[in-house]
Order: sequence, then structure tokens, then C-alpha cells
Amino acid sequence: MAFIQQSFSVAFEYKVFFTEHLFSTDNRVFAQFLETRAEKGFRKKLLFIVDDGVSSRHDYLQEQITAYCADIEGFELVEDVIVVPGGEASKNDLQLFHWLVNAVDQHAIDRHSYIVAIGGGSVLDLVGYVAGVSHRGVKIIRIPTTVLSQNDSGVGVKNGINYHGKKNFLGTFAPPAAVFNDAHFLTTLDERDWRSGMVEAVKVALIKDAAFFDWMEANAAQLTEAEPTALNYLIHRCAELHMQHIGGGGDPFESGSSRPLDFGHWSAHKLEQLTDFELRHGEAVSIGIALDSVYSWLTGLLDPESLERIIQLLKALRLPLYHPLLEIEDDEAPIVAGLQEFREHLGGRLTISLLEAIGKGKEVHSIDVNNLRKAVNMLRDKW
Amino acid sequence: MAFIQQSFSVAFEYKVFFTEHLFSTDNRVFAQFLETRAEKGFRKKLLFIVDDGVSSRHDYLQEQITAYCADIEGFELVEDVIVVPGGEASKNDLQLFHWLVNAVDQHAIDRHSYIVAIGGGSVLDLVGYVAGVSHRGVKIIRIPTTVLSQNDSGVGVKNGINYHGKKNFLGTFAPPAAVFNDAHFLTTLDERDWRSGMVEAVKVALIKDAAFFDWMEANAAQLTEAEPTALNYLIHRCAELHMQHIGGGGDPFESGSSRPLDFGHWSAHKLEQLTDFELRHGEAVSIGIALDSVYSWLTGLLDPESLERIIQLLKALRLPLYHPLLEIEDDEAPIVAGLQEFREHLGGRLTISLLEAIGKGKEVHSIDVNNLRKAVNMLRDKW
Repeated sequence: MAFIQQSFSVAFEYKVFFTEHLFSTDNRVFAQFLETRAEKGFRKKLLFIVDDGVSSRHDYLQEQITAYCADIEGFELVEDVIVVPGGEASKNDLQLFHWLVNAVDQHAIDRHSYIVAIGGGSVLDLVGYVAGVSHRGVKIIRIPTTVLSQNDSGVGVKNGINYHGKKNFLGTFAPPAAVFNDAHFLTTLDERDWRSGMVEAVKVALIKDAAFFDWMEANAAQLTEAEPTALNYLIHRCAELHMQHIGGGGDPFESGSSRPLDFGHWSAHKLEQLTDFELRHGEAVSIGIALDSVYSWLTGLLDPESLERIIQLLKALRLPLYHPLLEIEDDEAPIVAGLQEFREHLGGRLTISLLEAIGKGKEVHSIDVNNLRKAVNMLRDKW
Repeated sequence: MAFIQQSFSVAFEYKVFFTEHLFSTDNRVFAQFLETRAEKGFRKKLLFIVDDGVSSRHDYLQEQITAYCADIEGFELVEDVIVVPGGEASKNDLQLFHWLVNAVDQHAIDRHSYIVAIGGGSVLDLVGYVAGVSHRGVKIIRIPTTVLSQNDSGVGVKNGINYHGKKNFLGTFAPPAAVFNDAHFLTTLDERDWRSGMVEAVKVALIKDAAFFDWMEANAAQLTEAEPTALNYLIHRCAELHMQHIGGGGDPFESGSSRPLDFGHWSAHKLEQLTDFELRHGEAVSIGIALDSVYSWLTGLLDPESLERIIQLLKALRLPLYHPLLEIEDDEAPIVAGLQEFREHLGGRLTISLLEAIGKGKEVHSIDVNNLRKAVNMLRDKW
């Protein structure tokens, strides 16, 4: 049989920087990064796209960016800083996607230019998708401004928008050129946002790192007050574990059957949708973690002491354990449909992450609805 | 400065198979490929999307596909074979893109499923883009049906659609799972299509492989009659050189300043647009090759004997050398604007491939409009 074999590897590399007051003139981290990317003979463009929630709380930001970028060697700032609505709604708005693609076109942003996205996870996902498909990939620098995006989504390799109500139906795998986590942005977040953002750290500790879980237990009092040193360590370690999972798993773009870090997420995705995104992603994941931990115990995987520790940590962090829409009256319950939707999104066999110990996940390929109902009822009644 | 370093490589591998009558029951190439991709425990879906030009000339195809796919282990065929309009117009039609994304959703095609695209380069580009962004990348099998797509675009790593008149403005780099070049599809092409498709072979020979150019000269009589043995060798060798360039260049997704195989293409892109795609891509590239070869000679890069051989080969293949829209009256001539647009699409400095010998390209970073006008006038008057 006649054939030509093609094989090649594409190397991806980026740094996640931890800093504060990124665009104050005495902070050279951002400028130094760019200057390593300058090339003789032409100036590369920088197009900033900023979450409106960030720009309204940091009204000096646009001016600061303009001043900061004025003398970065080899780069020129596109004068208009684009402001876009933040939150999940921005990922549902196809017009917004087209508006940003048009901006890329009108400002003649090419494959050597950089789009700089500043905002929460939704804005980073949306702008990342715009960059990922314009000219088959314009470079993107991410500046995540929430706990959740700094420790999880913003440091990874995915982007995407929702389509006809399906979360992240359209998107690409596209590693950023760099990520800058600026701790100052965290100080102006709503409590619900910084609090719920911590749950991805609980999740990754539970399936990967028992010592990190111990640390969170020991520091729960500081964390629940968003004490900066504790919060920053949590973000750093969570980001690190997340990045190790992507880089070390051998299949960062999930082309085979590698699993994302999705413990507690199957029911969380469904709860977000069922509450029309009234629940924050992190709140939904907290409930999802509680549910799958109880289920792990009910099916004999997890010991009762570990379960109690997990529940008590979530409570200490004042994260929710239950929502009425979890309720399972029969096999047609909405939350049960979430299992099938979760399977479809990832494809292949149903695969659900459970726990066999704190720090150790385990995959199973079926879920017993009877035990699931028992778990829901316990979450409603027991804690 | 605190940072976390991420680095990983993603390996890509695919085969381009050469065969005939791919879906006749005694041809097992396609089935055998899929069977290596089967997994225990679930059946993967196959969604076929076919160019209407192909389905109308091969009216048995749908039935043949249904019969052929009925018993491929581990796979199930989505019953509806989707037929889409072919040609460049399909890449301008955003509604068509959305219609196909909806089909992916409605048929629950997941990341383990395969979309099989059958058609010319435009349909492969469009369907490739749909697959590239749905669920962040559904696997795609390409079955190119034209000379151009079998020897060039269909065997590479790009997809894309046009946006607001800009060619390939939206797209991704997404290597296929496999490519099947079926020689039988070539037998029903219009003469303009098979003839113009040969020009990419002339191009790649000129910049990479003098021996291949010699072979084309020696076989020009057979090629210009589309004699199957000669045509198939031309496609095979052109595909091979194209794939070597992508796989061997160290930057297959063009993230740095690596160049695609774009000799003769800067003016070709502009001519296609100026003629509202009345010129076939290959015809425009033939004119572009002629133009840049004459320019190479005028600026002292290329010797006159080589120039004459190039022109005579294009003429022997009955490919065009000139179009009235090339005409340069002043610096504002439309074709001159094509230089800037070409620079913008690739980004960075203007970089144009010229020739210093048959088989040897050379990059330059400026074009002298006066010499360009002389070259156009020679093409108009001399041959």
C-alpha cells in the first residue's frame, strides 16, 4: 500500500509570572518579556482587550497601559484599548466574537503581533478563541484577574466560547505566549468570586497532592479571610499542579483518552447550566466535589474520615455543598442527564473521576443512580 | 522574578495514502486504517461531508459509502451524508460554517469521532475549520478530489475560511488523522481544474528540487494530456515535497518567521481577489510564478536560460502567463497593493520568495516597482 508518512513535533513553551502592579512604571516584568520577543526591522503591535469589570474597578488602567507601553523596544501599542463585557454571558454572544475578529482585522494585527487579554476566565476564553483562529493564530498574552483564572483556566492551554447553550462548544487548544498573574487585581474582587475561585485548589489537591490539602486545612482560617500570603500561595501551587498535569501527561491537547482535571465537574457543568449561571463555576464545583466525595465513600472507595475532612474544609472555606436542583426523584432527573452530556463533551466512554484517598483520584466508567441519590440526600440533610 | 515554566511537545503523525476506488468493497485501505483506531467499549462515529461537485459526478458514492462502512469494526456511520457546495464560494459563506457546526452538534460528533471530508481544497478547508474548532478539535480524515488538493493543500496542516473578503482570515493549524488520495476522482475533473492543479508541482520543483523540474520538462507532453501515470507521479512527488517542507522545517505551525511554500503566491492571491475568483488558484499561481521568475532575472538573480525553461514549461502545460489586471500604471496599481496585503497576512517584514536557480529559492525583503512593471510588460508582450 503506497503512502507518505508525515510526523513532526511542535514545541510549546511559556512562563506564568507572579507579580503585582504589572503596569506601574517600576515593574519591568512585562516589558522585559516583550523585549526578548522583539525583532529587528519592524515593530510588533500590542492590542489590549480588557474585561469591563476590571477597567471599571481600575479606572487608571488604560492610562497606565498607554504610559507603560510607550517605550517598549520593538513594539507599538494599538491606541484603542478595547473594553468587553465580562462573565459567562460574553461567551454566549457570537456578535461579540465577530466584533473582536473585526477589530483584529481593522487594526491589522498579524501573526507576529500580540493580543493582551486582561480579565476573568470568560474574557480570557473569548479573546483566546479570537486570537486562536485569526490568521490561524495570533499570539496571546493572558493577564488573569480572578482567583479562578489565575490558578486554573488562565494558565492552561484552552480557549472557547459557548454555542447554542453548549459550554465551550467552539474553541481551540492554543498555549499563550505568556501569562502574568498580578495579585493586585485580586484585591478588588467580590467575595463570591475570590471565595469560589479557591475550590479548584481543593480539587487538584484531592486528586494529586495530599500535602497541599493538609496545608489548606492548616490555613483555612487565613484563606477564608483572603489573607494575601495564604491566597497567593494557594494560587501558585494550584497553578503549578494544573500546569504539571497538562505538560506532564503526554497529551496536552487531549487527542487521545487523557483526562482533564475534571473531578467534581460533571455535575458542576450541569448545575451551572440549570441555574442559568446564577451559580459561579467555583460554587458549582464545590457542590460537585462534595457530591463525588460522598459518592466515593458510599461505593466503598473512600474512608469516612477522609470524607469528613473534605466536607469540613469546604465548610471552613464557606463554600456550598448542596443545591436544590441536585435533587434526584427518578432516572430522568436533570442532574442525571448531566452524566450523558459530560460523556459527549469529552467523547468516548463515560469516565468519572472519584477519590480513593485524599490526594489520589480514581476513574470509573459507570455511576449508580441509586447511590447518587443517597449522596444528594446526605448533602441536603447531614451537614 | 517568580515564574512557573511550562514546556511540552505535541507529536503529530499522519499518513497520506495513494489508492483508487477507495470505497469499492475490495479496497480495504480505508477500513484497515480505521480499524487501527478502534477502541473497546464504544463505537466511534463517522460523519461524511461531501463536495456537491463530487457527489453529482459520482452519484453512486453515497450508496457505496453506506455499504462500505456498514461493517467497519468499532465505527458507526452517521446515516445522513452531508452535501455542501464546493469552490471558493463555500469559504465565503459564514452560514454554511454555522450549518456544519450545528450538524456536528446534532449528530453528537465528539472528540473521538471522525469527520470525513471529500472534495476540493475549498471544501476541505471549510470542513477542516469546522472540525478544528468543534469541541476544540474533532478528528478529520481528508479525501481530496482535485489535483491541487491531492498534491498540496489537502496533505498539509491548515484549514480556514474567508472573512469579509480576506482569504483564510479565520482558520487553525490542525493536522488530519489521515489523507486518502483516490486517483479515480481525478478522471472526472474539468480540464481547467486538473491543468491548473499541476502548477504547485512546478512551484515546489522550482524552489526545492531541480530534478523534479527536469522530470516535468521531459514529461510535459504526457502531463498536458493528463496521462494517468505521469499525473500520479507528479501528485505523489509534489505532495511529498510539500510534506517534507512542513515536517522538516522546524516550525510547522508557522509561529516564528518560517515561510510557507509561497513562491509566486503574493500576486496570485491578489489576482484571485481582483478577478473575483474567476481565475482558478492554480492559474493565478502560474501567472505569479511567471512574474516572479521574470523579476528574478531582471534583478540579476536568475540566469536567462533558466527563465526561458520556466516559461516554456508553463506554456507546454498550457498554463497562463499573464492577466490584464497585472498592469502597473503607477505605484497605486492594485497588484502593488497585493504586496502589502501579503505582508500583513503572514506578519512581520515583507518577505518574497524569488529564484536564484531552478531548484533554489531565495528570500528578499523588498520589491522594486519599476522592475515589477518591466516584468509585467514582458509577460504581456514577449511570450
